[in-house]
Amino acid sequence: MKEFELIHRYFIGRGPNRKDVIVGIGDDAAVLKVPDGKNLVVATDTMVEGTHFFQDASARSIGHKALVVNLSDFAAMGAEPAWASVALTLPTINEAWVEQFSQGLFDVAEYYGVQIVGGDTTKGPLSVTISLKGFVPEDRILKRSEAKAGDWIYVTGDLGRPALAVDYYKETKPLDSSNKEQVLEKFNFPNARLAAAQVIRHIATSAIDISDGLMQDLQHILTSSGVSAELYLDQLPISESLTNAISSEEAQRYALCGGEEYELLFTIPEEQRASLELNATAMGVTYTKIGQIKGGTSGITLLENGEKVSPQNYSGFEHFSD
Amino acid sequence: MKEFELIHRYFIGRGPNRKDVIVGIGDDAAVLKVPDGKNLVVATDTMVEGTHFFQDASARSIGHKALVVNLSDFAAMGAEPAWASVALTLPTINEAWVEQFSQGLFDVAEYYGVQIVGGDTTKGPLSVTISLKGFVPEDRILKRSEAKAGDWIYVTGDLGRPALAVDYYKETKPLDSSNKEQVLEKFNFPNARLAAAQVIRHIATSAIDISDGLMQDLQHILTSSGVSAELYLDQLPISESLTNAISSEEAQRYALCGGEEYELLFTIPEEQRASLELNATAMGVTYTKIGQIKGGTSGITLLENGEKVSPQNYSGFEHFSD
Repeated sequence: MKEFELIHRYFIGRGPNRKDVIVGIGDDAAVLKVPDGKNLVVATDTMVEGTHFFQDASARSIGHKALVVNLSDFAAMGAEPAWASVALTLPTINEAWVEQFSQGLFDVAEYYGVQIVGGDTTKGPLSVTISLKGFVPEDRILKRSEAKAGDWIYVTGDLGRPALAVDYYKETKPLDSSNKEQVLEKFNFPNARLAAAQVIRHIATSAIDISDGLMQDLQHILTSSGVSAELYLDQLPISESLTNAISSEEAQRYALCGGEEYELLFTIPEEQRASLELNATAMGVTYTKIGQIKGGTSGITLLENGEKVSPQNYSGFEHFSD
Repeated sequence: MKEFELIHRYFIGRGPNRKDVIVGIGDDAAVLKVPDGKNLVVATDTMVEGTHFFQDASARSIGHKALVVNLSDFAAMGAEPAWASVALTLPTINEAWVEQFSQGLFDVAEYYGVQIVGGDTTKGPLSVTISLKGFVPEDRILKRSEAKAGDWIYVTGDLGRPALAVDYYKETKPLDSSNKEQVLEKFNFPNARLAAAQVIRHIATSAIDISDGLMQDLQHILTSSGVSAELYLDQLPISESLTNAISSEEAQRYALCGGEEYELLFTIPEEQRASLELNATAMGVTYTKIGQIKGGTSGITLLENGEKVSPQNYSGFEHFSD
């Protein structure tokens, strides 16, 4: 099967058909209309075997996750997604694989109203790079750099499952059938926290999505904002499937250092807490208060039931660390 | 060396510093300002070993070419480049390699005024995906679909060198020292025909860049426009370094079917020929008339000194054909 036929069959004419797409797939480049009064937002993420998925990962999961990791960046900016370009590198053309991949991709694209407007297909080791485009109102950009001393630190959803899934796939942690599905589900089919982003983008002082690990991503906010933080270990929203499968100490470590979470970490001033609670409840957004921003630049202080805890070996997930 | 330090050292604060970049590298996504009255243009291309470069290719060449292949798509749309995201996958971090890669990338970025606004670095088999963003006036988009019977077919520059370079790297064709440098130069350090695009975007009826081969890319125009074409084999602008190195028959085949040219193929109505000649000469753009658009949908007819030639084995370059 030829490359062009492949692209045509599985990518053209599927998913949302947006009015702001002037030239879509099929020319040298896409031509798109950004609404007046809005800025363009662009996020680009690559997924490769061994980091974001493992050998024998389902093609549907890869297609799903490749778009979600970019949508997660959009959530962290308070931005609205619109268009995506998909660069897909495949060792061989396996039509069943491409069909499943496109299914996973378009499931997510349909849900969030994203149109696939172009991309590239090449031959080589399996990898997917998606470049997601969309908008943000000119005066509303959720950056990492505006966290202030006194702000409360929140996180959406639960923590720790994706890191445990990675260790399961690397065969360093077993999982029995009672927890396996729940643990692996979040790694293979994560959600992007765009609903939460709608709630917080008017009230948060900073936000980031957790892709490298809670500790490391919080440190990015602290560095950008020139502040430090206290983190409450006993308040971390650790998944029950995690504490069922491993010791609570281990679970804590996964929650602090595990990457691939795609939860939102954000800071809210005291005077906006009521607004957060009201709107998050109305939108069905789950969130947990896990610490507070402090002055100075002393990094992260860990507290357990109000007592300082030494940071042990809580370094973040680092793509090139092994 | 950690991923983040690597990105910071070689990519942040280098190259053009555009006023329309509101948030650049360093947050979850880039935020950019598209000018009023212009549409957004997006091109995404991946470069992988074995197709766009070969083992032991210089990192500077890979960085250079990764941006040029996208700029070439912009030339084919008559668009103005502005911002790029760079997704770089590396098996290991080799600092000298990254330094040279970034040098090749920023040489091109500086020249064309493109700011690197974000991207991703992952661990895996070497590949580079660049997503280039820029603008086009709302009423001026150079598509593939408006070629009309009677229009003349033109191509910029010369043809055939990149395909011969590929065969040299694959060790199926030797090159002696008298031609080697010239042949390999265009494969490793191609140019994007943005100056030519400025000349033709007001007068051409269609345009495409030659990435898959003259025959195949011309066929894309014919299919999109619902027309056919006559191509003059004796008029093809074949590089002298090609005819010095191989037989003229072989050279013709490279010129017709070779990919990776990044020349512009475009169609001009008879009444715009004078305008083309005047402006192209003023801009120092080299171009050759190589055929004419005809009615019907009979594909490409090859002519040599006015006589029909059978198409032999002139199929285009296909990424998955082997």
